[in-house]
Amino acid sequence: MYVILVYDMKQQRVNRMLKLCRRYLHWIQNSVFEGEISEVKLTELLAKARTIMNADEDSLILFKSRTQQWLEKQVVGRERSSLDTLL
Amino acid sequence: MYVILVYDMKQQRVNRMLKLCRRYLHWIQNSVFEGEISEVKLTELLAKARTIMNADEDSLILFKSRTQQWLEKQVVGRERSSLDTLL
Repeated sequence: MYVILVYDMKQQRVNRMLKLCRRYLHWIQNSVFEGEISEVKLTELLAKARTIMNADEDSLILFKSRTQQWLEKQVVGRERSSLDTLL
Repeated sequence: MYVILVYDMKQQRVNRMLKLCRRYLHWIQNSVFEGEISEVKLTELLAKARTIMNADEDSLILFKSRTQQWLEKQVVGRERSSLDTLL
């Protein structure tokens, strides 16, 4: 399946979440990731994310689509993904 | 059509973008919005967004789906939208 993942974390936990998500998905902007992922891998990612998150303060939203073809992406302004390799 | 909009703006322009996007879509997290929107309204939103954005520094990403049914949303942690009316 194809997913878009966005998180909103307290500063002190952002780096751990960023590193985790980058192991499963493509970073496309600030706290936004996308990519093709299996159900098993997604379950794994979410289990690990929950160990990092504070459920009262942090938020993670997933949008799942059966296929990437159902989602059309449009970027306005700066393309952030070119910075992907720098972090 | 159904869209997810995420932006990454320099701090000094964030408030104007937030206000603009809230006039067209539902705010669901930090810099993330979603909602049903017509092609005409989306074009209008993007034209206004471009007047706020600095194309070298800011980024806006849109994911468009023909229907919301093709996107399944899952929220982990805090539900941010409850704060929507406070801003």
